[in-house]
Amino acid sequence: MILEKIDSPKNLKSLSLAELKTLAQEIREYMLAVLSEHPGHFAPNFGTIELAIALHHVLDTPRDRIIWDIGHQAYPHKLLTGRRDQFPTVREFGGISGFLSREESEYDVFGAGHSSTSLAAALGIATARDINKKDYKVVAVIGDGGLTGGMAFEALNAAGDFRTDMTVVLNDNQMSISATVGAFSKYFNRLTSNKAYNVLRSGAKEFMDFISPDAKHVARKIEAALKPGTLFEAFGFRYFGPLDGNDLEAVLPVLEGVKALQGPILVHVSTRKGKGYAPAETDPVGFYSLSGKLDVQTGKFLAAKSSVPKYTDVFSQALIKLAKGDSRIVGVTAAMPSGTGLDKFQEAFPKRFFDVGLAEQCAVTFAAGLATQEIKPVVAIYSTFLQRAYDQVIHDVCIQNLPVTFVLDRAGLVGADGPTHHGVFDYAYLRSLPNMVAMAPKDEDELQHMVRTAVEYDDGPIAFRYPRGSGIGVPMQKEPQALPIGKGEVLREGDDLLIVAIGNRVYPATEAADVLADSGVSTAVVNARFVKPLDEELIVPLAERIGRVITIEDGVLMGGFGSAVLEALAHRGIQDVQVRRLGIPDQFIEHGDVKTLYSLCGCDEEAIVRGGLALAGKSSG
Amino acid sequence: MILEKIDSPKNLKSLSLAELKTLAQEIREYMLAVLSEHPGHFAPNFGTIELAIALHHVLDTPRDRIIWDIGHQAYPHKLLTGRRDQFPTVREFGGISGFLSREESEYDVFGAGHSSTSLAAALGIATARDINKKDYKVVAVIGDGGLTGGMAFEALNAAGDFRTDMTVVLNDNQMSISATVGAFSKYFNRLTSNKAYNVLRSGAKEFMDFISPDAKHVARKIEAALKPGTLFEAFGFRYFGPLDGNDLEAVLPVLEGVKALQGPILVHVSTRKGKGYAPAETDPVGFYSLSGKLDVQTGKFLAAKSSVPKYTDVFSQALIKLAKGDSRIVGVTAAMPSGTGLDKFQEAFPKRFFDVGLAEQCAVTFAAGLATQEIKPVVAIYSTFLQRAYDQVIHDVCIQNLPVTFVLDRAGLVGADGPTHHGVFDYAYLRSLPNMVAMAPKDEDELQHMVRTAVEYDDGPIAFRYPRGSGIGVPMQKEPQALPIGKGEVLREGDDLLIVAIGNRVYPATEAADVLADSGVSTAVVNARFVKPLDEELIVPLAERIGRVITIEDGVLMGGFGSAVLEALAHRGIQDVQVRRLGIPDQFIEHGDVKTLYSLCGCDEEAIVRGGLALAGKSSG
Repeated sequence: MILEKIDSPKNLKSLSLAELKTLAQEIREYMLAVLSEHPGHFAPNFGTIELAIALHHVLDTPRDRIIWDIGHQAYPHKLLTGRRDQFPTVREFGGISGFLSREESEYDVFGAGHSSTSLAAALGIATARDINKKDYKVVAVIGDGGLTGGMAFEALNAAGDFRTDMTVVLNDNQMSISATVGAFSKYFNRLTSNKAYNVLRSGAKEFMDFISPDAKHVARKIEAALKPGTLFEAFGFRYFGPLDGNDLEAVLPVLEGVKALQGPILVHVSTRKGKGYAPAETDPVGFYSLSGKLDVQTGKFLAAKSSVPKYTDVFSQALIKLAKGDSRIVGVTAAMPSGTGLDKFQEAFPKRFFDVGLAEQCAVTFAAGLATQEIKPVVAIYSTFLQRAYDQVIHDVCIQNLPVTFVLDRAGLVGADGPTHHGVFDYAYLRSLPNMVAMAPKDEDELQHMVRTAVEYDDGPIAFRYPRGSGIGVPMQKEPQALPIGKGEVLREGDDLLIVAIGNRVYPATEAADVLADSGVSTAVVNARFVKPLDEELIVPLAERIGRVITIEDGVLMGGFGSAVLEALAHRGIQDVQVRRLGIPDQFIEHGDVKTLYSLCGCDEEAIVRGGLALAGKSSG
Repeated sequence: MILEKIDSPKNLKSLSLAELKTLAQEIREYMLAVLSEHPGHFAPNFGTIELAIALHHVLDTPRDRIIWDIGHQAYPHKLLTGRRDQFPTVREFGGISGFLSREESEYDVFGAGHSSTSLAAALGIATARDINKKDYKVVAVIGDGGLTGGMAFEALNAAGDFRTDMTVVLNDNQMSISATVGAFSKYFNRLTSNKAYNVLRSGAKEFMDFISPDAKHVARKIEAALKPGTLFEAFGFRYFGPLDGNDLEAVLPVLEGVKALQGPILVHVSTRKGKGYAPAETDPVGFYSLSGKLDVQTGKFLAAKSSVPKYTDVFSQALIKLAKGDSRIVGVTAAMPSGTGLDKFQEAFPKRFFDVGLAEQCAVTFAAGLATQEIKPVVAIYSTFLQRAYDQVIHDVCIQNLPVTFVLDRAGLVGADGPTHHGVFDYAYLRSLPNMVAMAPKDEDELQHMVRTAVEYDDGPIAFRYPRGSGIGVPMQKEPQALPIGKGEVLREGDDLLIVAIGNRVYPATEAADVLADSGVSTAVVNARFVKPLDEELIVPLAERIGRVITIEDGVLMGGFGSAVLEALAHRGIQDVQVRRLGIPDQFIEHGDVKTLYSLCGCDEEAIVRGGLALAGKSSG
């Protein structure tokens, strides 16, 4: 077995083409064996095996730098760079990351997790190389999806201007995370399937046959065929491609060739997501990322179907139900129709669904434009990705006080995806924005009510955020009901301690209250529901009467929900109240199972109990 | 005078070409008369007079929608849409905005102030039109600078995909705010100066003369000439241009013609910044925005030179001084070299200066790339524009804990530029990010020390933010000194009241302390210097001893600096301290002079005195 002997890319150097092909097959088999047991990103990694082998074979890594965009396609790179034996720990607590991490390996030149950053990072690294008078090569690998993110274009523009020596490998798999989106993608598709171009490239007899007597016609064909080069040349890049990126014989010589060139270069390769595993080739969206174990033989997922609905599905179903009665409602996604559940909305209302590509900024301002014309846009973006559109939320939505609904899926700690994907900043940044209303449901039933609350709210922007995964398993009311804006609810009465909780920390709060009650601490629990406007009329008098408060949230403690409670108390001049805030501490949280992470953060039922006992003088906690 | 009769665009309809030309000249003269007395954006507005006239002449506004990018070039549009008589109040408190505002006029279809938003907004508006089954035209006007912002490309991509009927007018003035930046700009320059193309377009005899017998050569020329169309066609747009955008005879028929077409259309016009006023044509950077009165005859600025240096200049000089001794220091800007003072750095170190275009996201991740390779990037971006790169600050810098220095100019209330430009969110969002150090100087001398503190700090990201305009006029130490990280300073001792201030609110605090002392309230003052890490060791014991605290900051109260003080007290279990927080309330603040705005916000010396007297029981305040 060749893979067993690859402890670093150095070991690739002496391998023959046949051996490299065998290695590719071994990597495929190893990834399949591991990922069927240890879920993670799947299809993207099966597409980049040959590319990773070719890059590490041709380049002198880690002296030469490879910067992978996003990193969800970098497992083959990890297997070739000393992480073969750790690979079964991928995405597990204490194991290797599912993305790129500078802390994990010197071969992970630049950390990633979000898309479209690789070109700007590579430009910085290449520029630093020149300042430092070194001579290594810098190669960024970006997907066609990643290229639809605006900052990729920003970097193309700057790189072409600076004339920096760097190579961009455009990994064109004609599909970003979900369906192909964007004029740009279509353009690539047109190109790679353009016979004239491929014939022209082959330089063979067929080309002559292809030429008709009508020279004008030919000229037009040639012009059309040359378009992709022209496009990147507009940015000052030299263009090579398209190549079959799953064919080592096609890729190796071109990468070898461009290594000798200087300046901004773009190599366009086509790869196939899921390549080599038929079920994934057939259904690359379903195999984008596995969430449970896989029966390798049948291609079926073995995950025991939970009877508890996922938050995403509850949102999706509620929105569809409400959209039937309100034709103003439209759905907007940034290349995440299935992840956000808007794929179902699309099926129900194909003309009221808009996917702008991996382009959160555009999604938000597009929605703002819609909202100026009596449309009710519902923009569904993962909490961590909405960070990309922070300024658009402020400048285009909040300043103009437009009724846009923001749906933040994957809020709080997301688990295996780790620090780039935890959605822990949203309470803090949303509540500091004037005109914003921001909610979080305690369970899936409350979520459906918040969907209705949001789409019926016409006075300005409104957001709700909820965690990844399944709900609590509570009974669902038949119809979603609009909640009163800015009103929380009392879930437990008590006299010794008040817990003010929000979102997915409400159930830990009620459970802790029961434990505390058993220990003689009479504990009240408030579900705040709204981080903004905070229900000060409910919370402040209770806090003042009880005198001991624990706040808990699955967001950062610095400026978050708990701080809103402190502000409310200070604003009303309330003293003599002890407040202990639980939440995400001031550090980035690693990947791992969510329960472990919340425990590490001191943000779970046990932490409440400890804090409650300490506050009530029942222990030194 | 024709302008006197233009109360709405309806009045343009019956005007002859000659009259429209006269109107353009009258607008030029009126803008010159007004702006020489009432400073505002200058050169961009002189470039768009004919474009504004042509668009409002051809289109049926406000039924048809014009969306201007940024809005700093929309004064002619304002003059044509009922705001002629109010124009002398531009940017004054209570007067009309210097940008676009939906509240101000139904002709301001979409508010702006930041760049590159117009295409996404127009796409939203055009999509809403189609959903609503209406038939008006939607036209976005964007500069070549605005097009370097990534979200403009995101929107081009989505618009081409959706095939929506909308027109983009690319206002190519071959210069964004400062020098031409980016491969893209160069590309346009090449194009518009391409003789072959212009000859081809003229369709005249010269074209035939131009054709050489070498058909291949001609084909190549034609191909090169057709490039811009090709570029936008890649995004699915039909391309028209380039036209002379200052020539009504060139622009009117094309706009009239494309009005009859459907689908995504791009009209490329060239305009000249400052057009018609020679000093501005010669120096469009100097005339980008006037900061004082102008002698129209000589083209000289009449603003009395202050002897007090501007914060921007103090930063710039300190950085240059430090860079002489540390070759790792480089400067990075997003198309704002003169605004940030980095133009001086560029003069001193041309090879250590990088301008990536109107592309804050790219600037930050580019800097992160540099920082991985032992370079010390200093990224200077206005506070409000750094919002654009919020995710890049988190994902590319903070998670990787890279030593990037962020310089946030124009922090706090900026005055005449208004709500899109106030830099009031930075304390709140920077302090919630793990690994970030964030400072604000009380005066220009402290600023130079913070510059040194930042560039000598190697442990991770560090930011400092300071206001627009001149410093306090304090003596400057000869050499900048590094400050201890996370340490504040006591400026006044006292026993009845503690004021904890930061940044430009420190001097109001000491002045208020003196007034309060005269009223018998012995007032201590702390200059916190660091919003993160907060000097808890200094502040908490003082607060506990004194028992009455006022915090003051020129940032939002929700989650800001004052909340950090509340958190510190709560964290240490301190009760019996009354805290009153002064800062920017939870609303967007209009434009106007800074003193008036701070007074309105209750965020000045008088507000401290009122609050201090109330807290100390000396009044009912």
